[in-house]
Amino acid sequence: MPQNLFPLDNTKKFKDQKIVGHNRWHPDIPPAVKIKPGTVFCADCREWFDGAIRNDDSADDIRHAPLAGVHVLSGPFYVEGAEPGDLLIVDILEIDACNQEDSGPLSGQGWGYTGVFARNNGGGFLTERFPDAYKVIWDFRGDVATSRHIPEVSYTGIHHPGLMGTAPSAELLARWTAREKALIATDPMRVPPLALPPLPDSAILGSLKGAEFERVAAEAARTAPPRENGGNQDIKNLTAGSRVFYPVFVPGANLSFGDLHFSQGDGEITFCGAIEMGGFMDLHVDLIKGGMAKYGVKENAVFMPGNRDPQYSEWLAFSGVSVDSGGKQHYLDSWLAYQNACNHAIDYLMKFGYTDIQAYMILGTAPVEGRLSGVVDIPNACSTIYIPRAIFDFDIRPSATGAPHQVKQGVQVPRSGN
Amino acid sequence: MPQNLFPLDNTKKFKDQKIVGHNRWHPDIPPAVKIKPGTVFCADCREWFDGAIRNDDSADDIRHAPLAGVHVLSGPFYVEGAEPGDLLIVDILEIDACNQEDSGPLSGQGWGYTGVFARNNGGGFLTERFPDAYKVIWDFRGDVATSRHIPEVSYTGIHHPGLMGTAPSAELLARWTAREKALIATDPMRVPPLALPPLPDSAILGSLKGAEFERVAAEAARTAPPRENGGNQDIKNLTAGSRVFYPVFVPGANLSFGDLHFSQGDGEITFCGAIEMGGFMDLHVDLIKGGMAKYGVKENAVFMPGNRDPQYSEWLAFSGVSVDSGGKQHYLDSWLAYQNACNHAIDYLMKFGYTDIQAYMILGTAPVEGRLSGVVDIPNACSTIYIPRAIFDFDIRPSATGAPHQVKQGVQVPRSGN
Amino acid sequence: MPQNLFPLDNTKKFKDQKIVGHNRWHPDIPPAVKIKPGTVFCADCREWFDGAIRNDDSADDIRHAPLAGVHVLSGPFYVEGAEPGDLLIVDILEIDACNQEDSGPLSGQGWGYTGVFARNNGGGFLTERFPDAYKVIWDFRGDVATSRHIPEVSYTGIHHPGLMGTAPSAELLARWTAREKALIATDPMRVPPLALPPLPDSAILGSLKGAEFERVAAEAARTAPPRENGGNQDIKNLTAGSRVFYPVFVPGANLSFGDLHFSQGDGEITFCGAIEMGGFMDLHVDLIKGGMAKYGVKENAVFMPGNRDPQYSEWLAFSGVSVDSGGKQHYLDSWLAYQNACNHAIDYLMKFGYTDIQAYMILGTAPVEGRLSGVVDIPNACSTIYIPRAIFDFDIRPSATGAPHQVKQGVQVPRSGN
Amino acid sequence: MPQNLFPLDNTKKFKDQKIVGHNRWHPDIPPAVKIKPGTVFCADCREWFDGAIRNDDSADDIRHAPLAGVHVLSGPFYVEGAEPGDLLIVDILEIDACNQEDSGPLSGQGWGYTGVFARNNGGGFLTERFPDAYKVIWDFRGDVATSRHIPEVSYTGIHHPGLMGTAPSAELLARWTAREKALIATDPMRVPPLALPPLPDSAILGSLKGAEFERVAAEAARTAPPRENGGNQDIKNLTAGSRVFYPVFVPGANLSFGDLHFSQGDGEITFCGAIEMGGFMDLHVDLIKGGMAKYGVKENAVFMPGNRDPQYSEWLAFSGVSVDSGGKQHYLDSWLAYQNACNHAIDYLMKFGYTDIQAYMILGTAPVEGRLSGVVDIPNACSTIYIPRAIFDFDIRPSATGAPHQVKQGVQVPRSGN
Repeated sequence: MPQNLFPLDNTKKFKDQKIVGHNRWHPDIPPAVKIKPGTVFCADCREWFDGAIRNDDSADDIRHAPLAGVHVLSGPFYVEGAEPGDLLIVDILEIDACNQEDSGPLSGQGWGYTGVFARNNGGGFLTERFPDAYKVIWDFRGDVATSRHIPEVSYTGIHHPGLMGTAPSAELLARWTAREKALIATDPMRVPPLALPPLPDSAILGSLKGAEFERVAAEAARTAPPRENGGNQDIKNLTAGSRVFYPVFVPGANLSFGDLHFSQGDGEITFCGAIEMGGFMDLHVDLIKGGMAKYGVKENAVFMPGNRDPQYSEWLAFSGVSVDSGGKQHYLDSWLAYQNACNHAIDYLMKFGYTDIQAYMILGTAPVEGRLSGVVDIPNACSTIYIPRAIFDFDIRPSATGAPHQVKQGVQVPRSGN
Repeated sequence: MPQNLFPLDNTKKFKDQKIVGHNRWHPDIPPAVKIKPGTVFCADCREWFDGAIRNDDSADDIRHAPLAGVHVLSGPFYVEGAEPGDLLIVDILEIDACNQEDSGPLSGQGWGYTGVFARNNGGGFLTERFPDAYKVIWDFRGDVATSRHIPEVSYTGIHHPGLMGTAPSAELLARWTAREKALIATDPMRVPPLALPPLPDSAILGSLKGAEFERVAAEAARTAPPRENGGNQDIKNLTAGSRVFYPVFVPGANLSFGDLHFSQGDGEITFCGAIEMGGFMDLHVDLIKGGMAKYGVKENAVFMPGNRDPQYSEWLAFSGVSVDSGGKQHYLDSWLAYQNACNHAIDYLMKFGYTDIQAYMILGTAPVEGRLSGVVDIPNACSTIYIPRAIFDFDIRPSATGAPHQVKQGVQVPRSGN
Repeated sequence: MPQNLFPLDNTKKFKDQKIVGHNRWHPDIPPAVKIKPGTVFCADCREWFDGAIRNDDSADDIRHAPLAGVHVLSGPFYVEGAEPGDLLIVDILEIDACNQEDSGPLSGQGWGYTGVFARNNGGGFLTERFPDAYKVIWDFRGDVATSRHIPEVSYTGIHHPGLMGTAPSAELLARWTAREKALIATDPMRVPPLALPPLPDSAILGSLKGAEFERVAAEAARTAPPRENGGNQDIKNLTAGSRVFYPVFVPGANLSFGDLHFSQGDGEITFCGAIEMGGFMDLHVDLIKGGMAKYGVKENAVFMPGNRDPQYSEWLAFSGVSVDSGGKQHYLDSWLAYQNACNHAIDYLMKFGYTDIQAYMILGTAPVEGRLSGVVDIPNACSTIYIPRAIFDFDIRPSATGAPHQVKQGVQVPRSGN
Repeated sequence: MPQNLFPLDNTKKFKDQKIVGHNRWHPDIPPAVKIKPGTVFCADCREWFDGAIRNDDSADDIRHAPLAGVHVLSGPFYVEGAEPGDLLIVDILEIDACNQEDSGPLSGQGWGYTGVFARNNGGGFLTERFPDAYKVIWDFRGDVATSRHIPEVSYTGIHHPGLMGTAPSAELLARWTAREKALIATDPMRVPPLALPPLPDSAILGSLKGAEFERVAAEAARTAPPRENGGNQDIKNLTAGSRVFYPVFVPGANLSFGDLHFSQGDGEITFCGAIEMGGFMDLHVDLIKGGMAKYGVKENAVFMPGNRDPQYSEWLAFSGVSVDSGGKQHYLDSWLAYQNACNHAIDYLMKFGYTDIQAYMILGTAPVEGRLSGVVDIPNACSTIYIPRAIFDFDIRPSATGAPHQVKQGVQVPRSGN
């Protein structure tokens, strides 16, 4: 292993570590580690809820998930010589769970979880259909995941960091806050909310203390959304072997990352989330001086995915268009079309004996592909979802003869509702 | 070749053929051909504008493209024994251009086109950035496309039908019309329009004549959008070897198809369109009796993609989030996020000497992947676009050393504006 | 289609065509067609036995297969400007059966065959185990093959030409004859023979006539083996989209080709052969002047495979080492090791209810991979064979629980013995 | 990590470890560890020469490589309940180098080596062309290898164990010894030898001592060749995610393994070897009771490769036939044909400025495919080798225009000759 520059003690909470990371974006969070371009290093990552979700058969922890505290991030890493306008090269050399196959209280220690938030505490992509909280526990064997809560399915995970990015400049941060507050103002009482404003409660800001802590906590951006700095992009294809290019907005770039996923389907539709895990990444960083202008990159990550993600060649796919469940026509809404495609897939899987929530959990975590198939054919966008057939222990194809195989149910998916 | 049940004479217009197809959806368009389940057959397909777009260096034909006449479809094929509630199995056995390598006046005769509509005649995905009409001509050599209008790029096309579907029932048609008119009513003067209402002008309705023609023409749905019956889904992965399942809404299913694409990137972002071509498909049809209930399929195509699409393993990818060009925050808008990802890719490619429209055309036609990477991280959706690096004759990767390669320009992309 | 420069009339024998091809290698076989570098053209290809093998349930035709007449080749194509020392570029643009789905008396007309020669008329890779003649008929549906003689298996074929090459120079031909005769002389009575000497009987030599025909027929090399000019390499990866580079030994290069395969496993272990078919290829030719010296190519084809061959991602693999069935140790014999791997695969498949010959036929025709895994670990070479699991209608994996699925037998594989 | 049942101290020699492994095959080598079916465990593996090869720029260590001491194996692992006739299931869950990116004296500690043996100490696949000893050092960065001795090439390694197998029965061991001695007897003075007889010198036999050690050392089989028990198969496709089935010949199966490779081309043509490394594997074992009869497996590994090996889609391929360098015709010799294909690839790469030994080293270590393309076309076998084009920093394709790129040489490949 390369040197671990951000070690985490699995017996301690995130804010009690020797080097304390952060869970907000702000230019004035001090660097945790300084490195030179060309450095190869290891960094531990804590699972995004810092251990609040347990390996058990209750979804109460998901129902009351401490959303104010996410995402606990490793960093910032200050890269010497990095200046605004550069592109920061990040090579993801390795990524894995912290302690495979072991039992342990932290997800990543041989297991991971996927949750669906209750509508009144986070909500999610299909919150109309699934208004309660749910949880599924996955067991890891090498890179393969199985769950006691979902029968007859297993797959090779597509490991990736859900979240990685550079620090925003003060100007950029101000822009984020302004535009997100403006959105919230359009429907401030909405449940779930339209966006998340700055929140001092539960903020972790590295080594900051006192008045400076208070100031930054009040200003800092939440980590939930992806933004110009990369951030919580949840791109499942940022696998080991990927090279990612981030815009640099502050001196030193101040790279941070976390929210590791054992596996995820495109969209992370279950929101809480993929198969969440603590673990580590081996990274290599370098710079393209003046890269933003040189390559026309103003925002968001540019990347070259790795070539070792799990390969599947036989798929079952579903499509959807942008008409909502009430029959109302929306204009070219790819997001709604993807909801419909996902709902169609769930309806289909239920015919094989899965419950609706089991089917939803599969779509959120297996290496499914979600594509923007048609975005111009007014008024309907068409989105499609592709499920690898080999993840099922049985034949999942439609057939003119015989009845669909019925899975044998065991432990049901834990649910926690009102 | 299997027997051609829907031959087209390349010297004649679509409505002057021996068997006349249609360009609207309506349950009362009479079947053109009757077939039994299990039949394997060939059918010719005319390119979607029926020859109005020419192999030349002017975009005037695109600027004045006869939108009222699209899409000219082969069919309906009445499948004996098909009843509402069944699933129609369609195997795409082969799909290719009509006359490879030949010169000829119809796209598909050794060449194809990609257009970008002017904002006031169709518009498109990036119509803010590209308000004029543009056209690019592609030459086919086997399954490889190159263009005199875009230097130093070539790729193996991912052939597929842009449009395939079954006839709607009267009830379903009425629902379409109602919901789309309701949408139009929210902004009836919009340019481009929000949706396309029924339009008797230029309607082609198979063998219908007289009063019945008039009635159906006034009621029939336009073919632009994908809907419950499949339709213009523009799924690039419906390649040869695919098996597609369509819901059956009328006796006989009344399958129709057309709008063949030599290649397309996810989204068909250029709208007019992919690389458009006339050609043929070899199909096999069969039935799953009662399949809609058996497999929980209420609408839209379910499919298993073929395994012979072109394989690429090295990619360059761009991401975008749902903030518009004016800096306004939108709520989880995957469509807007994809626009941003596409714009980022265009900005990048321009640094290698491509013009903006050349870059746009590449994204619309090469086998690029467009993924819904994040759909839950409020308020920003994250969409990503993946370009195969091997389609360029040069190294397209960002580099810390040296300047980006500059392509050598030849014939510019034809443009037709005001 | 590009212009067909070598059309074949399916109602006539190969030697009765308007343009007559050839079935021997010799520098003095006159060109059938002259083309310029850069030409794109189509050429028909007759199946290698010129129609002697029928679509029926008897293997008598295989038992008495007219070996003296193979392979009937399209060509020679004289490429203007080609000189010895050049590399001839051949792009395989398209390749397909002649008349898909039709019934017809020629293989390639909707069907193909695979044979196993009797030991006393050709033999084969596993002739010890299969000394008699066998035949299997395959039905084509698009690019998918199934057989009435082999239950519960189907696969997307990997179309390719078994044979393609340039004409040898007189000097090269003399070398071939000398070295092959020397080999035959080590065991001249062997059945099957070690090699095939020149044979005037059944020779077809294009437009040659009279004394010149007699001279060339007596000298010309048989087409069975691959040699310095390419020839019968049986490389399954020469799929559409491939670019192949052949050394040029005579002015004009004199390119010829044929022996099209609908599909083949690595090695073409059944010998007679792959799934044999007549059909056509679209080709593009060009030259690298002085390419042999420029790129260090003295012999055999260099090639870049296409990227549209069928993709499979789940495999079942078998290995073998170089100990023969009598228990004798051989020194690093990869060929023997591959025999053992194939025999192991056959033994395995028989546990699922296949007969030995059915299993053999699957290995010879499905897109199986055969790899030289170890070639240095004295004294045992290790060869491996990989079968795509998706070609079976059932689960082919070994399992700790339950018994192997048993296929339901129908028509048995025709056999013709003594 | 699962529990490490076979830990190795990197500061100590293999025979000085707390648990001592072995470097010979014999049924009476006592189990090092006992495990139950279903166990998931980790085991360290020492590189095959136990640290004799150094990270420096001299090939003297290769020239005098202590061949008598190979391969140092982890095991035997006694699986409770395993009996002769069972199949042992081994899942390779993870495999990696021992200490990535670190410097350290053992290969696997951030680096690995590839050697070519001198003809008089081991020889190799192309020993006629390369009679001296050579060494190349590779640096690991994540799963990517580069070498200071070979410019402008890098690739994602295809990690796998070169050697894994079960213990032979006494009867099987006797058969091995007899047949290999019989082969040696045909040319006992050959350099390199035809096979390796039992050799007490340098034998390591676990916990055996005294007279029993002497007896077993005198009888035990060398580990170089693959045999009925699996053994040194050098199958590059035994990547993480693979499931392997081994025949069981002795109670407890007595599984052993080692000779980890960071990467290897098909054939391991450089012999010493692939990119050799120490490291670890996470394994899961289970049993199919009576599996040998149930699935017709008498010998050698059956396996299902993993689905996470590095993906490449563009290749450059070379072919060869079975005529030796003296022009002599051999009968269907796939091994000789592969030598020719490899030599052709070397000749080609030299035109880009590589030395012959650099080219050889690339073929031995990059994830190249080696296929048995034709094994029946008397008298010539055809073998082919496929090099992924993306491993080169430049365009490796043949071109009609311009001269081949010339790599910029740095440190030459260390050589040690007479």
